[in-house]
Amino acid sequence: MINVGIYGYGNLGKGVECAVNGSPDMKLYGVFTRRNPESISTLTGTNVYRADDIISHKGCMDVLIICGGSATDLPQMTPELARNFNVVDSYDNHSHIPEYFERVNSSALLGGTVAVISGGWDPGLFSLARVYGSSVLPDGEHYTFWGKGVSQGHSDAIRRIPGVIDARQYTIPVPQAMERVRNGENPVLTTREKHTRECFVVVEDGADRSAIEEAIKTMPAYFADYDTTVNFVSAEELKRDHSGLPHGGTVIRSGVTGINGENKETFEFSLNLDSNPEFTGSVLTALARAAVRMRKKGEKGCFTILDIPPYMLSPENPEELRKHLL
Amino acid sequence: MINVGIYGYGNLGKGVECAVNGSPDMKLYGVFTRRNPESISTLTGTNVYRADDIISHKGCMDVLIICGGSATDLPQMTPELARNFNVVDSYDNHSHIPEYFERVNSSALLGGTVAVISGGWDPGLFSLARVYGSSVLPDGEHYTFWGKGVSQGHSDAIRRIPGVIDARQYTIPVPQAMERVRNGENPVLTTREKHTRECFVVVEDGADRSAIEEAIKTMPAYFADYDTTVNFVSAEELKRDHSGLPHGGTVIRSGVTGINGENKETFEFSLNLDSNPEFTGSVLTALARAAVRMRKKGEKGCFTILDIPPYMLSPENPEELRKHLL
Repeated sequence: MINVGIYGYGNLGKGVECAVNGSPDMKLYGVFTRRNPESISTLTGTNVYRADDIISHKGCMDVLIICGGSATDLPQMTPELARNFNVVDSYDNHSHIPEYFERVNSSALLGGTVAVISGGWDPGLFSLARVYGSSVLPDGEHYTFWGKGVSQGHSDAIRRIPGVIDARQYTIPVPQAMERVRNGENPVLTTREKHTRECFVVVEDGADRSAIEEAIKTMPAYFADYDTTVNFVSAEELKRDHSGLPHGGTVIRSGVTGINGENKETFEFSLNLDSNPEFTGSVLTALARAAVRMRKKGEKGCFTILDIPPYMLSPENPEELRKHLL
Repeated sequence: MINVGIYGYGNLGKGVECAVNGSPDMKLYGVFTRRNPESISTLTGTNVYRADDIISHKGCMDVLIICGGSATDLPQMTPELARNFNVVDSYDNHSHIPEYFERVNSSALLGGTVAVISGGWDPGLFSLARVYGSSVLPDGEHYTFWGKGVSQGHSDAIRRIPGVIDARQYTIPVPQAMERVRNGENPVLTTREKHTRECFVVVEDGADRSAIEEAIKTMPAYFADYDTTVNFVSAEELKRDHSGLPHGGTVIRSGVTGINGENKETFEFSLNLDSNPEFTGSVLTALARAAVRMRKKGEKGCFTILDIPPYMLSPENPEELRKHLL
């Protein structure tokens, strides 16, 4: 049995807890939190420990899944924890991955551990689709569409506008753009042509709705480059209709084969998720299995899902996989 | 540059030739054929050699892609050639893969070579989807739908019926079945509920069409368990409308997450291919790149796509992949 610790207990930590609980070859060691452990009751009843005391648990776990945010938590936590534990995280700041990889790699090499970073679905499973897709169809283009799904960052951005009480923002891919890609047109698509944004906003009594709508639609980086619709709803409606965290998306690689590129080939991977954090937690859990196996084979340092043989993520052994799933 | 040989020069061999020709890091060494080499002119003008003389080319190629049939060619060719060359093949007889793997493994270990078997899209990319899907969603079911596409085996079976001159058979997934799977119903589907078969048949003048239609629809193993439609067409129509070899299909993993399995998650991978042999050849070519890299790292023996780190299939190096595709 693989003994798993969870570091951080928000939505993602709970998703990991469910996934480990549902894995036949794993057991939960406990949850580490920066909050008061006595204030937390876990879904499975697993132990709760102080994050500050984690070093005293060295040797008790096979792998630690770090469930923090990419902005400030992970850049500090993962390099530090990789000195003493095999770790897995979901670092998703795409443009900073190369330097982050190097920092974690140095720590893991010093610690003699395996660190798997940037797990989840994007980066993660979508990265796999992009790499396999471009490897088998080098003469082509890849496209990533996100949604329909809740963007937490965009929802937060709306909440910061004066007069807004709560908000939920959905990122929605443009069906016509996806169809053009599927048809092998290899279109050049602007930001506006790929996705639209839909907002459900609860405002204070007497708030200036048209000013709030304008503030959302013109917000740089978040909304200005998109066609955005704003719906004002009551707090009850928001809770009733928009309390889940669904997400998903599609990676399409469209390419040509043949001596003159005369044949079109389309490679498509998509996810449709009721719960973004639970699914992300499930991917991290499969990667935790792989991290332990890699360490047992003598590996150390930093890795991503692109470096790991697929069989290592599965609870089944290679013989069973060849028999049932190949 | 990776130096690639092609063993067997039918549709698949030509597909590999196109793919190697389009790979920036590869060059073609030549084609090996059991036919008279002088009777063959290749698409790229690469050299044509006698298959019987291949041992005299030992050391001249980094990898040999074996393009033979799974029924009788590959079980004889791959174990033999793996004694002297790194090899890749597309062995697709699913139920015999475990014993085939062992035979090829023994040869490759003796020869100190790397053999990658069962490449292509199913087995191959679809196997990846099944393994990744079941690893991240262990509480779920997977479904494989094939088509719409041409089945050569079923087309051949029709051609063997007396009075039939030529035929093309399309395997078509049932949209309602796919929708039920996508909806997370995890249905138990019979053979008939998953796929239909559509046949285009050219018959001799005066042939008994209703007898031929009956012979097709009741043919055990091939058609009896399916809803089959038979269309009689002229030789000209068959050539004009049905001369391509399109194929494709979809793997869906549908599972649940959450402490009580309350959330549905759907994982879907699909291919839509104008040319089955060219796309299969493209996958084999990416695997040939991986085979050479694995041998350079000191590996030997038999492998499948499930054993190979994804980055090894790509012409880009791991740093570039982390920067651009992760």
